[in-house]
Amino acid sequence: MPALITLTSDYGGRDGFAASVKGVILKINPQAQIVDISNEIAPQDVWEAAYTLKSTYSHFPNGTVHLAVVDPGVGSGRRPIIVVTESYYFVGPDNGLFSLIYQDAERLRVHHITSTHYFLPNPGPTFHGRDIFAPVASWLAKGIPSGNFGEEITDFTKLNIPVPRVAERSIEGHVVHIDRFGNIITNITYKDIQPFVAEDGSLAFSTITLAGKEIKGLKKYYAEAKTGEPGAIINSSGALEVFMFKQNARTVLSVKRGEAVRLTIGA
Amino acid sequence: MPALITLTSDYGGRDGFAASVKGVILKINPQAQIVDISNEIAPQDVWEAAYTLKSTYSHFPNGTVHLAVVDPGVGSGRRPIIVVTESYYFVGPDNGLFSLIYQDAERLRVHHITSTHYFLPNPGPTFHGRDIFAPVASWLAKGIPSGNFGEEITDFTKLNIPVPRVAERSIEGHVVHIDRFGNIITNITYKDIQPFVAEDGSLAFSTITLAGKEIKGLKKYYAEAKTGEPGAIINSSGALEVFMFKQNARTVLSVKRGEAVRLTIGA
Amino acid sequence: MPALITLTSDYGGRDGFAASVKGVILKINPQAQIVDISNEIAPQDVWEAAYTLKSTYSHFPNGTVHLAVVDPGVGSGRRPIIVVTESYYFVGPDNGLFSLIYQDAERLRVHHITSTHYFLPNPGPTFHGRDIFAPVASWLAKGIPSGNFGEEITDFTKLNIPVPRVAERSIEGHVVHIDRFGNIITNITYKDIQPFVAEDGSLAFSTITLAGKEIKGLKKYYAEAKTGEPGAIINSSGALEVFMFKQNARTVLSVKRGEAVRLTIGA
Repeated sequence: MPALITLTSDYGGRDGFAASVKGVILKINPQAQIVDISNEIAPQDVWEAAYTLKSTYSHFPNGTVHLAVVDPGVGSGRRPIIVVTESYYFVGPDNGLFSLIYQDAERLRVHHITSTHYFLPNPGPTFHGRDIFAPVASWLAKGIPSGNFGEEITDFTKLNIPVPRVAERSIEGHVVHIDRFGNIITNITYKDIQPFVAEDGSLAFSTITLAGKEIKGLKKYYAEAKTGEPGAIINSSGALEVFMFKQNARTVLSVKRGEAVRLTIGA
Repeated sequence: MPALITLTSDYGGRDGFAASVKGVILKINPQAQIVDISNEIAPQDVWEAAYTLKSTYSHFPNGTVHLAVVDPGVGSGRRPIIVVTESYYFVGPDNGLFSLIYQDAERLRVHHITSTHYFLPNPGPTFHGRDIFAPVASWLAKGIPSGNFGEEITDFTKLNIPVPRVAERSIEGHVVHIDRFGNIITNITYKDIQPFVAEDGSLAFSTITLAGKEIKGLKKYYAEAKTGEPGAIINSSGALEVFMFKQNARTVLSVKRGEAVRLTIGA
Repeated sequence: MPALITLTSDYGGRDGFAASVKGVILKINPQAQIVDISNEIAPQDVWEAAYTLKSTYSHFPNGTVHLAVVDPGVGSGRRPIIVVTESYYFVGPDNGLFSLIYQDAERLRVHHITSTHYFLPNPGPTFHGRDIFAPVASWLAKGIPSGNFGEEITDFTKLNIPVPRVAERSIEGHVVHIDRFGNIITNITYKDIQPFVAEDGSLAFSTITLAGKEIKGLKKYYAEAKTGEPGAIINSSGALEVFMFKQNARTVLSVKRGEAVRLTIGA
């Protein structure tokens, strides 16, 4: 089985940044297989990278090395780290990018990367993705034990991740992501609303309030919603999502990440 | 020879949707090689996906599995299918996405995918690309016979594909695609105009009318056109294309897909 | 070690152009590994392709075949070429795209590709990336000697590459690229300013003038700059770069490629 490395970054597709990272990986490990998770993370948006990685990483084979670099603090004191869970490796800056991985992991070890002999010679201050993280990920995928790269640490950085407030007949959450289709994804999950879901999967006696709009019940699939009207659904990541069938709900409802969403149970 | 799988979708590059599909493929078949045809199809634009697949698929090695998911009806009753031609496999929703493949194929077999044990466990209603089509494509590329996935069907969906109207001294067609460069591609092909082409490849006594503009004759290459003036050419897919040298003809001429184009022969 | 081919082009991600190129490569050489450097070069922007290739190519393993196609003159008389340096191969049109490679190379050989039996049958006039350059790159990566594709030439095309004017206490250069983050990259390099840099890496007694703005000194990393104020840094390619921490300097300063930049030494 060839070494598999994924890449999540805000490098974009135009400048060749992601390509330099891949070149460095392949120089060390020509057999490595590299898959882009996303290089289109909004510039410096650590949360978006954390969210995107979280929705994707577990679909890869065990042993995959997930390299992720959204790194506004590049060149400053922030630490480079390796995260080891029961199934995967993660390599990147210690700025909270792996916060949602820490939540998921059953077993967790975090190493501060200090063994500079694994870096490219004379790493610059602006492109650690190429000079530090790429070679470390490639050596790791080649079988170098994570402990060889540096000491274990426990004071790694975690983003403050807001959880929904669940009351007796209502749940208050907020918008955590809006995808390419304009689908609006919230931090309210199936687990939160499960107590109120009927056996046939419906949530008929409920109202979802978002951006001043009221949405009734849950749909089972997108095409079930009336054209021009927003619907709500439990999406493929188990999250409550507001959508419009064949339309862009973000544009029509004019919603932004962080906005409040409220789910009320009852007639 | 490693299994080769291509991906055509409206997933975009930002959210990690395409990456989840690839992860699922590689979990089943770590040796698979995956090539993106396009993940930038306009959201829900089945025709654009059909057109893009048609311009590309035949350049891949025989045996390639072409996975294509532009799927507004995901989760509803539309069927998942495998299409088998004399040279390739296609996997995706039965919504007309493979219409231009049906036209090209000399031998054709279409299977309704019903063997749910090839799916991911508990497929959700919003992401069949990941939960159904990716694992099926991966197992297919690994050698599982297409018949194992479900029964053959004959009532598969075909888009209504308009053909040009050829009269004695004129051909009426329309714009079927506009590419990144702003080149305007019509459904009039070399075959349609061949009777009127001179031995040197020119079509001097002709007028192409598009968006109120008249274009004289055919160019042999882009740089032959005068700066600032639209030209017409037979492009690399054998289609009549209107372009502007080093300019974006779409923007300058303000043309949309579906617009009428008329070719008139004679002085 | 599998054959490695990179791709630099203005094909974009939407139309499947890059995918056709990859299909053709894999038909000839199913073991080839293909890495995109960038397919998002601005349409027909030969300089941007040259610059992007230059910032990236040397990070790939020795022997890599770099295929690059930004080719406004496609189908006209411009020649297809193979460039051979001490470490890499380059395949593309002879329009100056490889100018910065010629500067870097210690050993250099350029071949005019004339052996048409390596092309796809009946290459069209609009897509030499697919019909000519892809098969040539693939055969080359498969081991066909560069000499087999055509005669060596010495009159290959070079872009006029402006060099900074270094005076006693000032350097005048200009903006050569602006990246995804809005970072403004100049043709002034570390080598040019090295004589004025203090031992601690600082360049305190200096003013960088760009777009009517004055920037004092050099920063060591991005986060060192004050929010809302432009800073200057020597970037990962060794070039003088003007940036704004967590902001887009291009947008804020309203700068375009080609604009003059002046570095003045002294209190």
